[in-house]
Amino acid sequence: MKEIIETLIKEKKYFEIRKQLNELNTVEISEVINEFEISELVIMIFRLLKKDKASDVFPYLDSEHQEMIIHAATDIETKNIFDELYFDDIVDIIEEMPSDVVKKILKNTDAKDRHLINQLLKYPDNSAGSIMTTEYVDLEKNMKVSEAIEQIRNTGKDKENIYTCYITDEQGKLKGVLSLKELIAKKDDTIIEDIMNRNFISVQTNDDQEAVADMFKKYDLIVMPVTDHENRLLGIITIDDVMDVVEQEVTEDFHKMAGITAPAEETYLKTNVFTMAKQRIGWLAVLMISDTISGNIIQGYEKVLAQSIILTAFIPMLMSTGGNVGSQSSTVVIRALALGEISPKDAFKVLKKEFSISIMVSIVLAILNFIRLITLEKIDLMIALTVSVTLVFTVIVSKIVGALLPLGAKLIKADPAVMATPLITTISDAVTLIIYFKFATLFLKI
Amino acid sequence: MKEIIETLIKEKKYFEIRKQLNELNTVEISEVINEFEISELVIMIFRLLKKDKASDVFPYLDSEHQEMIIHAATDIETKNIFDELYFDDIVDIIEEMPSDVVKKILKNTDAKDRHLINQLLKYPDNSAGSIMTTEYVDLEKNMKVSEAIEQIRNTGKDKENIYTCYITDEQGKLKGVLSLKELIAKKDDTIIEDIMNRNFISVQTNDDQEAVADMFKKYDLIVMPVTDHENRLLGIITIDDVMDVVEQEVTEDFHKMAGITAPAEETYLKTNVFTMAKQRIGWLAVLMISDTISGNIIQGYEKVLAQSIILTAFIPMLMSTGGNVGSQSSTVVIRALALGEISPKDAFKVLKKEFSISIMVSIVLAILNFIRLITLEKIDLMIALTVSVTLVFTVIVSKIVGALLPLGAKLIKADPAVMATPLITTISDAVTLIIYFKFATLFLKI
Repeated sequence: MKEIIETLIKEKKYFEIRKQLNELNTVEISEVINEFEISELVIMIFRLLKKDKASDVFPYLDSEHQEMIIHAATDIETKNIFDELYFDDIVDIIEEMPSDVVKKILKNTDAKDRHLINQLLKYPDNSAGSIMTTEYVDLEKNMKVSEAIEQIRNTGKDKENIYTCYITDEQGKLKGVLSLKELIAKKDDTIIEDIMNRNFISVQTNDDQEAVADMFKKYDLIVMPVTDHENRLLGIITIDDVMDVVEQEVTEDFHKMAGITAPAEETYLKTNVFTMAKQRIGWLAVLMISDTISGNIIQGYEKVLAQSIILTAFIPMLMSTGGNVGSQSSTVVIRALALGEISPKDAFKVLKKEFSISIMVSIVLAILNFIRLITLEKIDLMIALTVSVTLVFTVIVSKIVGALLPLGAKLIKADPAVMATPLITTISDAVTLIIYFKFATLFLKI
Repeated sequence: MKEIIETLIKEKKYFEIRKQLNELNTVEISEVINEFEISELVIMIFRLLKKDKASDVFPYLDSEHQEMIIHAATDIETKNIFDELYFDDIVDIIEEMPSDVVKKILKNTDAKDRHLINQLLKYPDNSAGSIMTTEYVDLEKNMKVSEAIEQIRNTGKDKENIYTCYITDEQGKLKGVLSLKELIAKKDDTIIEDIMNRNFISVQTNDDQEAVADMFKKYDLIVMPVTDHENRLLGIITIDDVMDVVEQEVTEDFHKMAGITAPAEETYLKTNVFTMAKQRIGWLAVLMISDTISGNIIQGYEKVLAQSIILTAFIPMLMSTGGNVGSQSSTVVIRALALGEISPKDAFKVLKKEFSISIMVSIVLAILNFIRLITLEKIDLMIALTVSVTLVFTVIVSKIVGALLPLGAKLIKADPAVMATPLITTISDAVTLIIYFKFATLFLKI
């Protein structure tokens, strides 16, 4: 598509570009524009879009592209774009823009809207307030169904979500909710108060967005009201924003489990290398230093190693098997904790399960290893035995440590993903080495 | 809540139980019931619910609880529960039930519904067909807006989603879609054909559910039509089911990256230990055997080690740093691939980025390590140099390998998560050891 448009631009067939673009949907148009490097062409293509299409496309553009378009836009063009946007999208855009662009946007907004936008901008990052919007359907409790439908038909166009309606009292306190599906199925003269649900789910502006996402999943919601501490309705959160939160939280969990600190707010390609290096070096340095423990254990058994240098050859296999086993358990437990499938009170059940699994896994691995060592590698029987018995204990200990660390983290209200994964290898390495040298001195009588 | 109900049961205050339960919402009631062990009590509590509440709660119960309730239920009770459920929920429930329970459910369903359920059961696992439902709003293109609204008001109660309406022709082919929000905002005598969107997003029954989830995210959808290969409308997929798919796919990615095979279809506590042991042992065995490579490298340098046994003490630190660095890169790249932020064609950009990061990280780590070794550990200067220089190269190589493996996997259409993570440590271990011994022989002149 990009190539087609480039050709059409060269041929100055602007009318044809407009026709081609208008056949695509919003997201597809934004993809085409995002493919173009920042240049006058972007502005030209954007100006070829119909007025309402342009404001639909705008929130889907990269922030660099948005910034350039606003820079080039006249005041009227800016107003046209932002008049059609929902407040949560405007806030998302403003948060990414430099101050001169923000000024230009706010200058071209009504005083009332500007006030609301400023309110929304004040909510802390990752709070329910920061992802809510204020365009919801507000009904009165003594309305008839026919009146409510009439109101929605007249005002619904400007609301981000009309499928759940909110009933508030004179002080703006949320009294009930009613889905459009329930509303529309009722007889015309039914009174709203008689059919609204008083037993609804809501959150407060300062609640964490992750908790909000969990409630969406638990209650299968597509929209949820946000109130202040006195239960006054301030806005709604819609599921598309919740999907983004879920994705961001999952990415953070993946990163934490690999020992990367700090949230990933930007995409991979856009994050600066210094930021990335900083996010990664912390845990690497900590783990490098803590690996001294393994080194010290080996130094403590230097004499044993000197007498039987072949023992060194099995250290990598034993350590990495321990690490792999431990990270299997911790990953499964961390994920089960994240999904709410288990909680620290299930520690005993988890332990029993991981112990049973470790017995089975360790015996199979040890037998496999023993057979391989004495047949293929033709290693001395006692050394093969030392290695295989060590393997059994390493697997069992690593599985237990891998399962217990995230549960312990959760218990002391720390983040299981951060506390657990990077530490597990260090612990299992040290334990593995101690077990190995103990059995070596025992079996080989060194 | 469980305790309260147990007390009330002992006191035979059934009316009070009913009152207490009816104050909770559907999900909360299901949580209370799920807390009870499988026993007569569950059936008793379920029977205390109002008829329509009972069928709302039923899909949220654990499958063991559902099975027991159906076993105990009369034919009429079974019919009452399932009459109110949507087909996608019925199909989900049936898939978990033993055959006698399935027979009882199907026996108490209308012939027409039974036929539809059987159709839905035939779609392969993880396909769009397997998560779709058939209760959608179907409009005709020559209807007026007022007639369409009237039809939705009369029939909407039984539809899972009324917020997007579908316009089909005589052959059932999907011609357009129209959101209720757009419909309701139009004048009464507007003709549907003139306002419907012909440029809509749809999937086919055999499309993968992961692809479906990606489209929901990309286009911010809350519902999507499913057609056959001739574009005949068969059903719709709603966002609540997509959220479940996203969660399942993420869990699978976590597990794969820890070297656990096979999907996690059941929750942690419900999966049998034999199944879990089987899922975990495969990669462990493969990696254990492939770690022989590291062992063989060490054996090849036995003489070097024998002359300077202290070198052994740094093997764990070097290997685990390499492993940590590699898994940081692979995690970040795998996640960016999963989110569609990068694709194999960005390989060069990714490489450049990871290389720059690795230079910074490796130098900081090496300096830190060098200072520690000669000050705190009082290690011989040349050995400290050997270890630190090895560290620089290990970090660079591991970062590059960690970034390239998932990209390569994606390129050959393999799963980045499976192909990459468990293998990276093995590769980086081997490379680390070779680098280490090369520098050792060079610097220490052994």
